Amino acid sequence: MARIVQKFGGTSLATLDRIRAAAQRVKAEVALGSEVAVVVSAMAGTTNDLVEKCSALSPLHDAREYDTVVSAGEQVSSGLLALALQEIGVSARSWLGWQVALRTDDAHGKARILSIDTAELERRLANREVAVLAGFQGIAPNQRITTLGRGGSDTTAVALAAALGADRCDIHTDVDGVYTCDPRIVRQARKLSKITYEEMLEMASLGAKVLQTRSVEMAMKHRVPLRVLSSFEDLPGTLVVDEDEIVEQEVVSGIAYSRDEAKITLIGVADRPGIAATIFGPLADANVNVDMIVQNISEDGATTDVTFTVGKADQQRAVDLLRDLEPQLRYAQLRPDPDVVKISVIGVGMRSHAGVAQRMFAALSENGINIQVISTSEIKISVLVAERYLELAVRALHTAYGLDGD
Amino acid sequence: MARIVQKFGGTSLATLDRIRAAAQRVKAEVALGSEVAVVVSAMAGTTNDLVEKCSALSPLHDAREYDTVVSAGEQVSSGLLALALQEIGVSARSWLGWQVALRTDDAHGKARILSIDTAELERRLANREVAVLAGFQGIAPNQRITTLGRGGSDTTAVALAAALGADRCDIHTDVDGVYTCDPRIVRQARKLSKITYEEMLEMASLGAKVLQTRSVEMAMKHRVPLRVLSSFEDLPGTLVVDEDEIVEQEVVSGIAYSRDEAKITLIGVADRPGIAATIFGPLADANVNVDMIVQNISEDGATTDVTFTVGKADQQRAVDLLRDLEPQLRYAQLRPDPDVVKISVIGVGMRSHAGVAQRMFAALSENGINIQVISTSEIKISVLVAERYLELAVRALHTAYGLDGD
Repeated sequence: MARIVQKFGGTSLATLDRIRAAAQRVKAEVALGSEVAVVVSAMAGTTNDLVEKCSALSPLHDAREYDTVVSAGEQVSSGLLALALQEIGVSARSWLGWQVALRTDDAHGKARILSIDTAELERRLANREVAVLAGFQGIAPNQRITTLGRGGSDTTAVALAAALGADRCDIHTDVDGVYTCDPRIVRQARKLSKITYEEMLEMASLGAKVLQTRSVEMAMKHRVPLRVLSSFEDLPGTLVVDEDEIVEQEVVSGIAYSRDEAKITLIGVADRPGIAATIFGPLADANVNVDMIVQNISEDGATTDVTFTVGKADQQRAVDLLRDLEPQLRYAQLRPDPDVVKISVIGVGMRSHAGVAQRMFAALSENGINIQVISTSEIKISVLVAERYLELAVRALHTAYGLDGD
Repeated sequence: MARIVQKFGGTSLATLDRIRAAAQRVKAEVALGSEVAVVVSAMAGTTNDLVEKCSALSPLHDAREYDTVVSAGEQVSSGLLALALQEIGVSARSWLGWQVALRTDDAHGKARILSIDTAELERRLANREVAVLAGFQGIAPNQRITTLGRGGSDTTAVALAAALGADRCDIHTDVDGVYTCDPRIVRQARKLSKITYEEMLEMASLGAKVLQTRSVEMAMKHRVPLRVLSSFEDLPGTLVVDEDEIVEQEVVSGIAYSRDEAKITLIGVADRPGIAATIFGPLADANVNVDMIVQNISEDGATTDVTFTVGKADQQRAVDLLRDLEPQLRYAQLRPDPDVVKISVIGVGMRSHAGVAQRMFAALSENGINIQVISTSEIKISVLVAERYLELAVRALHTAYGLDGD
């Protein structure tokens, strides 16, 4: 007998009719003989409304009160889904974070899960009662409600699946799976039937907003098979699994992109030992997250050019900081450029295949696209290009790696 | 140093601006040097919205899930008011029913308060921290959230005031006090500066919807001085106190009325012992609440006429029941009449004054108003009259008892 955790996001619970539809999906899984635990987000719109109220009343709000207010959204949807399940003859009860208890640290607003008491849940699952757990929330050592931060309900679902030793964690969302690329840009994008955790992590961190990075990390760590599927259509979705569970691994699984990049170039920096630390130390201290870094040797040999990228929101702060550092750095010029995008080719298969990067460079070159910065990891090659090339570059790469569908 | 419980109703917290205004009222009380605990309702509209969602999903809903859903409203407002207080420099934190803990029985949807743990609250009050308690909610022995039913936040406030030994419980609402009569009907109605618990109880049960009966009963039992005042205007309001705290007691404090009455008359019922039990036993079994009862001896001596009143919502059920009982009762006629109102003259002073009833009967007679049924209690005389006389009767009585203001 399978034990399944089903997670429903806010759009999947946005109206009473959608809550009823979610209840039918739970019922269908129960009818297969599975033990089912459900994790719910707040009804779409609720969380934003509550967050706005908190911010309006108190811009720098007490995170403990914020958590008390915002967690009410999942409380409501858990009770409503339990009612919808009972109404169609499925035994169910709601559970709030503090009732389970789902214990977290006391980092209100972005708490981390410490433990989940599953004894009572397991007793009831065995008794054919569906547990409907309010996602995104827990209880801190001080007995106050905590929330887990962005994407918290995904994290709750994966943590619960791990704690229950579930056979699978189904993430019901408003897309029907993970695609080789954003279908809004590449018409020939194909839905992947399987993808590895590592690839999913790269996809997620690059802005394919299907799953939060944190929940994928947790699933990978605890080896919880994840399935991403639509709550609106009856389609199989995409399974996120361990590498060894994928028999026929493609070299490249997908093309991801991120618009949230800004490039900053320092020209004519004195080329001396420790110069990188002088630049990036103060940025790190100011919580500016630096992604790609390139350092060129200049022609004269005495100075160097340094290029790096930061998130668009951090660009101005980084520039201000570097202006203040001018006396120490003594650079000739500081050039910020927000009109860039990062495009990445992702695939665990590239570990064992040569020529993957070369094919990327060739495809871009054939289309007259200049590469500004390159960075690579074991399963990913990323390039920074001018923003106007986004669609052209993504489509060219999708074709070049044989990802186009019919 | 005074210890004060302040309660804010839903209309007093309906918008963020009103929440800010409520926070200012709390701050003003704190500035007087008082220890302040606050009890909040849900923002106006929230509870109805949540109740409707529950009913739509599951008409005969599980009361435990209903309580989980509906209690979220007060959770939100308690957190928001705590934020608003912090923002104006008042140390405050929210408390949910389960956090206090406010323990109730397990009658979900209409639970009764069993106890309130005040040790931690008192420690923090002494430390100048305002406690903002979510009203209407508690925790049952099964560790699930309960709600207290209609007017539950008033009850929470009075119970908290009693548990804390508070000097006063201020009920902030959308009216500025208790009036001698409904000002919409009697222009000369005056606001009472003081009223006794007993009088307030009669007022409340007769439809003057300022305070819920249950909270007044509890205040009377624990001798908690209540104050009803507007959250929108800076006026002293009405104090609800023990009889011996009112020096100059008027004979009559107010005139109340209720439209929620229906009269049923059985004509020509066989006049034999046990006939009343035959009529009212089945009604009681069917949960039909009978209010006034009159039995006349008929002219022939062998039959009798029985008249009684029930709530308008129960009228049809009562009539159907009596039709079924016709074989046993053998009455000549059954006459329902929904076009009646009950008008009551209320005052603890009437205990020690003769002629109070006579003045009522004279005033109605002078205006040509026929009295259909009379009932009396120690501090109240009620009459049933045709509905069309409502305004005329109420105004005549208000004048007759010298209640008219300027």
